[in-house]
Amino acid sequence: MIILGIDPGLATIGYGIIRTTDKKQRAKNKLKCLNYGCIITKPGTLTTERLKKINQGLNKIINHYKPEVLAVENVYFFKNLKTALPVSQAKGVILFTAAKKKIPTYEFTPLQIKMAITGYGKADKKQIQKMIQILLKLKELPTPDDSADALAAAVCCSFALDKTFGNPIMRV
Amino acid sequence: MIILGIDPGLATIGYGIIRTTDKKQRAKNKLKCLNYGCIITKPGTLTTERLKKINQGLNKIINHYKPEVLAVENVYFFKNLKTALPVSQAKGVILFTAAKKKIPTYEFTPLQIKMAITGYGKADKKQIQKMIQILLKLKELPTPDDSADALAAAVCCSFALDKTFGNPIMRV
Repeated sequence: MIILGIDPGLATIGYGIIRTTDKKQRAKNKLKCLNYGCIITKPGTLTTERLKKINQGLNKIINHYKPEVLAVENVYFFKNLKTALPVSQAKGVILFTAAKKKIPTYEFTPLQIKMAITGYGKADKKQIQKMIQILLKLKELPTPDDSADALAAAVCCSFALDKTFGNPIMRV
Repeated sequence: MIILGIDPGLATIGYGIIRTTDKKQRAKNKLKCLNYGCIITKPGTLTTERLKKINQGLNKIINHYKPEVLAVENVYFFKNLKTALPVSQAKGVILFTAAKKKIPTYEFTPLQIKMAITGYGKADKKQIQKMIQILLKLKELPTPDDSADALAAAVCCSFALDKTFGNPIMRV
Protein backbone atom coordinates (compact mmCIF):
# COMPACT_ATOMS: atom_id res chain seq x y z
CA MET A 1 0.00 0.00 0.00
CA ILE A 2 1.28 3.46 -0.87
CA ILE A 3 0.63 6.16 1.73
CA LEU A 4 1.07 9.87 1.19
CA GLY A 5 1.71 11.84 4.37
CA ILE A 6 1.17 15.59 4.38
CA ASP A 7 2.25 18.26 6.85
CA PRO A 8 -0.15 21.12 6.04
CA GLY A 9 0.91 24.74 5.72
CA LEU A 10 0.40 27.71 3.42
CA ALA A 11 4.08 28.52 2.72
CA THR A 12 5.65 25.07 3.19
CA ILE A 13 3.69 21.87 2.69
CA GLY A 14 5.70 18.80 3.64
CA TYR A 15 5.04 15.55 1.80
CA GLY A 16 6.34 12.05 2.24
CA ILE A 17 5.43 8.91 0.32
CA ILE A 18 5.99 5.44 1.77
CA ARG A 19 5.23 1.93 0.59
CA THR A 20 4.21 -0.75 3.05
CA THR A 21 4.57 -4.39 2.28
CA ASP A 22 2.45 -7.17 3.71
CA LYS A 23 1.64 -7.39 7.37
CA LYS A 24 4.28 -9.92 8.36
CA GLN A 25 7.04 -8.01 6.66
CA ARG A 26 5.83 -4.73 8.06
CA ALA A 27 6.31 -6.06 11.56
CA LYS A 28 9.95 -6.42 10.59
CA ASN A 29 10.11 -2.78 9.60
CA LYS A 30 9.69 -3.26 5.89
CA LEU A 31 8.54 0.25 5.19
CA LYS A 32 10.09 1.91 2.18
CA CYS A 33 10.38 5.60 1.56
CA LEU A 34 9.60 6.47 -2.06
CA ASN A 35 10.17 10.20 -1.82
CA TYR A 36 9.82 13.22 0.41
CA GLY A 37 10.07 16.97 0.09
CA CYS A 38 8.09 20.18 0.24
CA ILE A 39 5.70 22.17 -1.88
CA ILE A 40 6.67 25.81 -1.48
CA THR A 41 4.44 28.83 -2.11
CA LYS A 42 5.76 32.36 -2.17
CA PRO A 43 4.85 34.78 0.62
CA GLY A 44 3.63 38.06 -0.80
CA THR A 45 1.69 36.40 -3.60
CA LEU A 46 -2.11 36.15 -3.54
CA THR A 47 -3.55 33.53 -1.19
CA THR A 48 -5.76 32.28 -4.02
CA GLU A 49 -2.67 31.65 -6.18
CA ARG A 50 -0.88 29.92 -3.33
CA LEU A 51 -3.86 27.62 -2.77
CA LYS A 52 -3.91 26.84 -6.49
CA LYS A 53 -0.21 25.99 -6.35
CA ILE A 54 -0.79 23.61 -3.42
CA ASN A 55 -3.50 21.85 -5.41
CA GLN A 56 -1.28 21.61 -8.49
CA GLY A 57 1.72 20.34 -6.54
CA LEU A 58 -0.35 17.74 -4.74
CA ASN A 59 -2.02 16.58 -7.94
CA LYS A 60 1.42 16.07 -9.50
CA ILE A 61 2.54 13.92 -6.54
CA ILE A 62 -0.71 11.93 -6.55
CA ASN A 63 -0.57 11.34 -10.30
CA HIS A 64 3.04 10.15 -10.05
CA TYR A 65 2.92 7.93 -6.95
CA LYS A 66 -0.77 6.96 -6.98
CA PRO A 67 -1.15 6.76 -3.19
CA GLU A 68 -4.10 4.74 -1.90
CA VAL A 69 -4.34 6.65 1.38
CA LEU A 70 -3.59 10.18 2.56
CA ALA A 71 -2.43 10.80 6.14
CA VAL A 72 -2.51 14.29 7.56
CA GLU A 73 -1.72 15.87 10.90
CA ASN A 74 -4.75 17.17 12.73
CA VAL A 75 -3.44 20.32 14.35
CA TYR A 76 -6.06 21.85 16.57
CA PHE A 77 -3.75 23.82 18.76
CA PHE A 78 -2.14 26.98 17.48
CA LYS A 79 -0.23 29.71 19.22
CA ASN A 80 -2.46 32.22 17.50
CA LEU A 81 -5.28 32.51 14.99
CA LYS A 82 -3.01 34.39 12.58
CA THR A 83 -1.24 31.09 11.88
CA ALA A 84 -4.25 28.83 12.34
CA LEU A 85 -6.47 30.38 9.68
CA PRO A 86 -4.11 30.28 6.65
CA VAL A 87 -2.89 26.79 7.59
CA SER A 88 -6.51 25.61 7.82
CA GLN A 89 -7.36 27.18 4.47
CA ALA A 90 -4.45 25.29 2.94
CA LYS A 91 -5.55 22.12 4.70
CA GLY A 92 -9.04 22.53 3.24
CA VAL A 93 -7.52 22.52 -0.24
CA ILE A 94 -5.37 19.48 0.62
CA LEU A 95 -8.41 17.51 1.87
CA PHE A 96 -10.43 18.62 -1.15
CA THR A 97 -7.66 17.57 -3.57
CA ALA A 98 -7.55 14.09 -2.03
CA ALA A 99 -11.36 13.86 -2.14
CA LYS A 100 -11.42 14.79 -5.83
CA LYS A 101 -8.93 11.99 -6.48
CA LYS A 102 -11.09 9.63 -4.38
CA ILE A 103 -8.25 8.98 -1.92
CA PRO A 104 -9.46 8.29 1.64
CA THR A 105 -7.89 10.64 4.18
CA TYR A 106 -7.01 9.87 7.77
CA GLU A 107 -6.13 12.40 10.43
CA PHE A 108 -3.82 11.92 13.38
CA THR A 109 -3.10 14.24 16.25
CA PRO A 110 0.52 15.30 16.86
CA LEU A 111 0.40 13.20 20.04
CA GLN A 112 -0.68 10.08 18.14
CA ILE A 113 2.09 10.59 15.59
CA LYS A 114 4.78 11.19 18.21
CA MET A 115 3.66 8.16 20.22
CA ALA A 116 3.60 5.95 17.13
CA ILE A 117 7.03 7.02 15.88
CA THR A 118 9.03 7.49 19.09
CA GLY A 119 6.87 6.02 21.84
CA TYR A 120 7.04 9.40 23.53
CA GLY A 121 4.23 11.98 23.23
CA LYS A 122 6.45 14.95 23.77
CA ALA A 123 9.18 14.01 21.29
CA ASP A 124 10.84 16.99 19.63
CA LYS A 125 11.46 17.60 15.92
CA LYS A 126 14.97 16.13 16.11
CA GLN A 127 13.76 12.90 17.71
CA ILE A 128 11.07 12.51 15.06
CA GLN A 129 13.61 13.05 12.29
CA LYS A 130 16.02 10.52 13.81
CA MET A 131 13.35 7.83 14.30
CA ILE A 132 12.03 8.36 10.77
CA GLN A 133 15.56 7.96 9.45
CA ILE A 134 15.89 4.64 11.32
CA LEU A 135 12.40 3.31 10.52
CA LEU A 136 12.73 4.09 6.82
CA LYS A 137 16.47 3.30 6.63
CA LEU A 138 17.28 6.68 5.12
CA LYS A 139 20.92 7.55 4.44
CA GLU A 140 20.41 11.07 5.74
CA LEU A 141 18.30 12.78 8.35
CA PRO A 142 15.12 13.82 6.51
CA THR A 143 14.99 17.62 6.22
CA PRO A 144 13.32 20.02 6.50
CA ASP A 145 11.10 19.28 9.53
CA ASP A 146 8.01 19.60 7.35
CA SER A 147 8.93 16.63 5.18
CA ALA A 148 10.02 14.58 8.22
CA ASP A 149 6.64 15.35 9.80
CA ALA A 150 4.88 14.29 6.62
CA LEU A 151 6.78 10.98 6.59
CA ALA A 152 5.92 10.57 10.28
CA ALA A 153 2.20 11.00 9.51
CA ALA A 154 2.49 8.38 6.76
CA VAL A 155 4.32 5.89 9.01
CA CYS A 156 1.83 6.51 11.84
CA CYS A 157 -0.98 5.82 9.38
CA SER A 158 0.61 2.56 8.25
CA PHE A 159 0.84 1.41 11.89
CA ALA A 160 -2.76 2.45 12.54
CA LEU A 161 -4.17 0.73 9.45
CA ASP A 162 -2.17 -2.30 10.43
CA LYS A 163 -3.28 -2.12 14.05
CA THR A 164 0.40 -2.46 15.06
CA PHE A 165 -0.24 0.59 17.13
CA GLY A 166 -3.41 0.93 19.17
CA ASN A 167 -4.42 4.32 17.81
CA PRO A 168 -8.00 5.02 16.95
CA ILE A 169 -8.01 5.90 13.28
CA MET A 170 -10.09 8.84 12.20
CA ARG A 171 -11.25 9.20 8.65
CA VAL A 172 -12.12 12.75 7.63
CA MET B 1 -20.54 43.83 -13.30
CA ILE B 2 -21.73 40.66 -11.60
CA ILE B 3 -20.49 40.12 -8.06
CA LEU B 4 -20.80 36.89 -6.10
CA GLY B 5 -20.76 37.33 -2.33
CA ILE B 6 -20.00 34.37 -0.11
CA ASP B 7 -20.48 33.86 3.61
CA PRO B 8 -18.10 30.98 4.36
CA GLY B 9 -18.97 28.01 6.52
CA LEU B 10 -18.70 24.23 6.50
CA ALA B 11 -22.38 23.37 7.11
CA THR B 12 -24.04 26.47 5.59
CA ILE B 13 -22.39 28.54 2.90
CA GLY B 14 -24.39 31.67 2.09
CA TYR B 15 -24.25 33.03 -1.45
CA GLY B 16 -25.67 36.14 -3.05
CA ILE B 17 -25.30 37.35 -6.62
CA ILE B 18 -25.81 41.00 -7.54
CA ARG B 19 -25.47 42.97 -10.75
CA THR B 20 -24.19 46.53 -10.68
CA THR B 21 -24.91 48.91 -13.49
CA ASP B 22 -22.73 51.85 -14.48
CA LYS B 23 -21.31 54.23 -11.93
CA LYS B 24 -23.92 56.98 -12.23
CA GLN B 25 -26.80 54.59 -11.86
CA ARG B 26 -25.17 52.82 -8.98
CA ALA B 27 -25.13 56.05 -7.07
CA LYS B 28 -28.90 55.93 -7.37
CA ASN B 29 -28.99 52.49 -5.85
CA LYS B 30 -29.23 50.58 -9.09
CA LEU B 31 -28.03 47.32 -7.67
CA LYS B 32 -29.97 44.27 -8.70
CA CYS B 33 -30.15 41.01 -6.84
CA LEU B 34 -29.95 38.05 -9.21
CA ASN B 35 -30.24 35.30 -6.65
CA TYR B 36 -29.33 34.30 -3.14
CA GLY B 37 -29.41 31.17 -1.01
CA CYS B 38 -27.25 28.62 0.73
CA ILE B 39 -25.16 25.62 -0.09
CA ILE B 40 -25.81 23.06 2.65
CA THR B 41 -23.55 20.18 3.64
CA LYS B 42 -24.63 17.43 6.00
CA PRO B 43 -23.11 17.19 9.47
CA GLY B 44 -21.96 13.66 10.20
CA THR B 45 -20.64 13.14 6.68
CA LEU B 46 -16.91 13.14 5.92
CA THR B 47 -15.24 16.57 5.87
CA THR B 48 -13.64 15.68 2.54
CA GLU B 49 -17.09 15.01 1.04
CA ARG B 50 -18.45 18.26 2.46
CA LEU B 51 -15.56 20.21 0.95
CA LYS B 52 -16.21 18.53 -2.39
CA LYS B 53 -19.86 19.50 -2.16
CA ILE B 54 -18.94 23.15 -1.48
CA ASN B 55 -16.72 23.13 -4.57
CA GLN B 56 -19.45 21.55 -6.70
CA GLY B 57 -22.15 23.93 -5.47
CA LEU B 58 -19.95 26.96 -6.05
CA ASN B 59 -18.93 25.78 -9.51
CA LYS B 60 -22.61 25.43 -10.42
CA ILE B 61 -23.34 29.01 -9.30
CA ILE B 62 -20.25 30.38 -11.09
CA ASN B 63 -21.07 28.53 -14.31
CA HIS B 64 -24.64 29.84 -14.23
CA TYR B 65 -24.13 33.49 -13.24
CA LYS B 66 -20.57 34.00 -14.51
CA PRO B 67 -19.55 36.47 -11.76
CA GLU B 68 -16.56 38.68 -12.52
CA VAL B 69 -15.64 39.20 -8.87
CA LEU B 70 -15.95 37.21 -5.66
CA ALA B 71 -16.45 38.99 -2.33
CA VAL B 72 -15.92 37.13 0.90
CA GLU B 73 -16.03 38.00 4.56
CA ASN B 74 -12.66 37.92 6.27
CA VAL B 75 -13.49 36.52 9.66
CA TYR B 76 -10.45 36.53 11.88
CA PHE B 77 -12.22 36.45 15.19
CA PHE B 78 -13.83 33.29 16.44
CA LYS B 79 -15.20 32.32 19.78
CA ASN B 80 -13.17 29.15 19.60
CA LEU B 81 -10.83 27.23 17.36
CA LYS B 82 -13.35 24.42 17.07
CA THR B 83 -15.41 26.68 14.79
CA ALA B 84 -12.51 28.56 13.22
CA LEU B 85 -10.70 25.57 11.76
CA PRO B 86 -13.54 23.92 9.78
CA VAL B 87 -14.79 27.33 8.56
CA SER B 88 -11.26 28.17 7.39
CA GLN B 89 -10.91 24.82 5.65
CA ALA B 90 -14.15 25.54 3.79
CA LYS B 91 -12.95 29.04 3.00
CA GLY B 92 -9.74 27.61 1.54
CA VAL B 93 -11.83 25.55 -0.88
CA ILE B 94 -13.98 28.61 -1.72
CA LEU B 95 -10.90 30.74 -2.51
CA PHE B 96 -9.37 27.88 -4.48
CA THR B 97 -12.57 27.38 -6.50
CA ALA B 98 -12.63 31.07 -7.46
CA ALA B 99 -8.91 30.95 -8.34
CA LYS B 100 -9.44 27.94 -10.59
CA LYS B 101 -12.18 29.88 -12.41
CA LYS B 102 -9.82 32.90 -12.62
CA ILE B 103 -12.22 35.10 -10.65
CA PRO B 104 -10.46 37.77 -8.54
CA THR B 105 -11.43 37.58 -4.88
CA TYR B 106 -11.71 40.46 -2.44
CA GLU B 107 -11.97 40.16 1.32
CA PHE B 108 -13.76 42.49 3.68
CA THR B 109 -13.84 42.49 7.45
CA PRO B 110 -17.23 42.24 9.18
CA LEU B 111 -16.69 45.85 10.32
CA GLN B 112 -16.15 47.06 6.76
CA ILE B 113 -19.28 45.25 5.58
CA LYS B 114 -21.44 46.55 8.42
CA MET B 115 -20.18 50.10 7.91
CA ALA B 116 -20.78 49.93 4.16
CA ILE B 117 -24.30 48.52 4.46
CA THR B 118 -25.69 50.24 7.55
CA GLY B 119 -23.18 52.98 8.38
CA TYR B 120 -22.85 51.36 11.79
CA GLY B 121 -20.00 49.03 12.66
CA LYS B 122 -21.91 47.14 15.31
CA ALA B 123 -25.06 46.52 13.29
CA ASP B 124 -26.80 43.26 14.14
CA LYS B 125 -28.02 40.53 11.78
CA LYS B 126 -31.51 41.99 11.61
CA GLN B 127 -30.27 45.45 10.63
CA ILE B 128 -28.09 43.97 7.89
CA GLN B 129 -31.03 41.98 6.53
CA LYS B 130 -33.29 45.04 6.56
CA MET B 131 -30.76 47.29 4.81
CA ILE B 132 -30.01 44.62 2.21
CA GLN B 133 -33.75 44.34 1.55
CA ILE B 134 -33.95 48.11 1.00
CA LEU B 135 -30.74 48.45 -1.05
CA LEU B 136 -31.64 45.57 -3.35
CA LYS B 137 -35.41 46.29 -3.33
CA LEU B 138 -36.26 42.77 -2.28
CA LYS B 139 -39.90 41.87 -1.62
CA GLU B 140 -38.96 39.89 1.45
CA LEU B 141 -36.34 40.05 4.15
CA PRO B 142 -33.46 37.89 2.84
CA THR B 143 -33.16 34.73 4.94
CA PRO B 144 -31.33 32.92 6.34
CA ASP B 145 -28.66 35.24 7.83
CA ASP B 146 -25.99 33.46 5.83
CA SER B 147 -27.44 34.50 2.49
CA ALA B 148 -28.11 38.06 3.73
CA ASP B 149 -24.46 38.23 4.85
CA ALA B 150 -23.35 36.98 1.44
CA LEU B 151 -25.42 39.68 -0.29
CA ALA B 152 -23.97 42.23 2.14
CA ALA B 153 -20.43 41.19 1.17
CA ALA B 154 -21.33 41.57 -2.51
CA VAL B 155 -22.89 45.03 -1.98
CA CYS B 156 -19.91 46.14 0.14
CA CYS B 157 -17.61 44.99 -2.66
CA SER B 158 -19.58 46.95 -5.27
CA PHE B 159 -19.22 50.10 -3.14
CA ALA B 160 -15.53 49.47 -2.61
CA LEU B 161 -14.76 48.82 -6.30
CA ASP B 162 -16.73 51.94 -7.07
CA LYS B 163 -15.00 53.94 -4.35
CA THR B 164 -18.45 55.06 -3.12
CA PHE B 165 -17.29 53.87 0.22
CA GLY B 166 -13.80 54.71 1.45
CA ASN B 167 -12.80 51.18 2.34
CA PRO B 168 -9.41 49.86 1.45
CA ILE B 169 -10.01 46.91 -0.81
CA MET B 170 -7.98 43.81 -0.21
CA ARG B 171 -7.43 41.27 -2.91
CA VAL B 172 -6.56 37.80 -1.64
